[in-house]
Amino acid sequence: MPEESIQFHARRSVEQVEEGDELAPRFDERGLIAAVTTDAASGELLMQGYMNADALRLTIKTGEAHYFSRSRQSVWHKGATSGFLQKVEELRIDDDQDCVWLRVSVVGGSCHVGYRSCFYRRIPVGEKQRIMDPLKLEFTDARKVFDPQDVYGDAPNPTIL
Amino acid sequence: MPEESIQFHARRSVEQVEEGDELAPRFDERGLIAAVTTDAASGELLMQGYMNADALRLTIKTGEAHYFSRSRQSVWHKGATSGFLQKVEELRIDDDQDCVWLRVSVVGGSCHVGYRSCFYRRIPVGEKQRIMDPLKLEFTDARKVFDPQDVYGDAPNPTIL
Repeated sequence: MPEESIQFHARRSVEQVEEGDELAPRFDERGLIAAVTTDAASGELLMQGYMNADALRLTIKTGEAHYFSRSRQSVWHKGATSGFLQKVEELRIDDDQDCVWLRVSVVGGSCHVGYRSCFYRRIPVGEKQRIMDPLKLEFTDARKVFDPQDVYGDAPNPTIL
Repeated sequence: MPEESIQFHARRSVEQVEEGDELAPRFDERGLIAAVTTDAASGELLMQGYMNADALRLTIKTGEAHYFSRSRQSVWHKGATSGFLQKVEELRIDDDQDCVWLRVSVVGGSCHVGYRSCFYRRIPVGEKQRIMDPLKLEFTDARKVFDPQDVYGDAPNPTIL
């Protein structure tokens, strides 16, 4: 069926949203729902992004991750530029239906900096933080899996300061 | 050190934010940063929430997850009511420093509906979705791990319609 025919239900009650089998996502004031993407095999968190209604419908229809880019203000087929598509092995939604979880398989990286995951630095917590002054981030990945210059060339960096 | 002394750096450049070892989180127009919480042992996504600067400092200082409740508009020590504290085994931050990843260990549930994870329903995608009309959510968890009525009593439900 075309993605336009993937219907989202109106949100009528807490019971319907939390305990029911109807897909009734809540898009925020920007028209977005949060999306959390983990590696289906390792459980590693790869990225956290957002979807609008079109991106969610396209993800459901195609089984490939689509997001909404806040910096470009457009739907974004993940991997369209880099070739590193994310195949959705499983898609879940949370209790109040304002966040989806994508378990994906991906060849290559999911981070525009070149790492496999966007989460390549650790913040020390608790005891470890108390003995470290000033606090410094620790790199968890020894190397990048691709060279962003090769993949993206001179495309604008999406990071907003 | 007191949490007030956990310093966040000003965001000066893309290179500093993406490739450096300075903690320079970007809080959005609401003063919030996204927080993704997975089970440190299984990799299961437990919840996705938000932190303000105080919640992030308290999490770093104590090693226990603190969030900012958008429905209550206040910092929230996860588990303070239910007893199901989240011990932070590892805290990471993403490339552009607008999202943190908490790997936690927790006894009991992390979902106010009573399930272990907030993500207890699957959205069919791709081929599976095409043969299912209308689309229905599939429950992935056979049972709740606690009774929310026992734990929360008549406290208001945080789900916003």
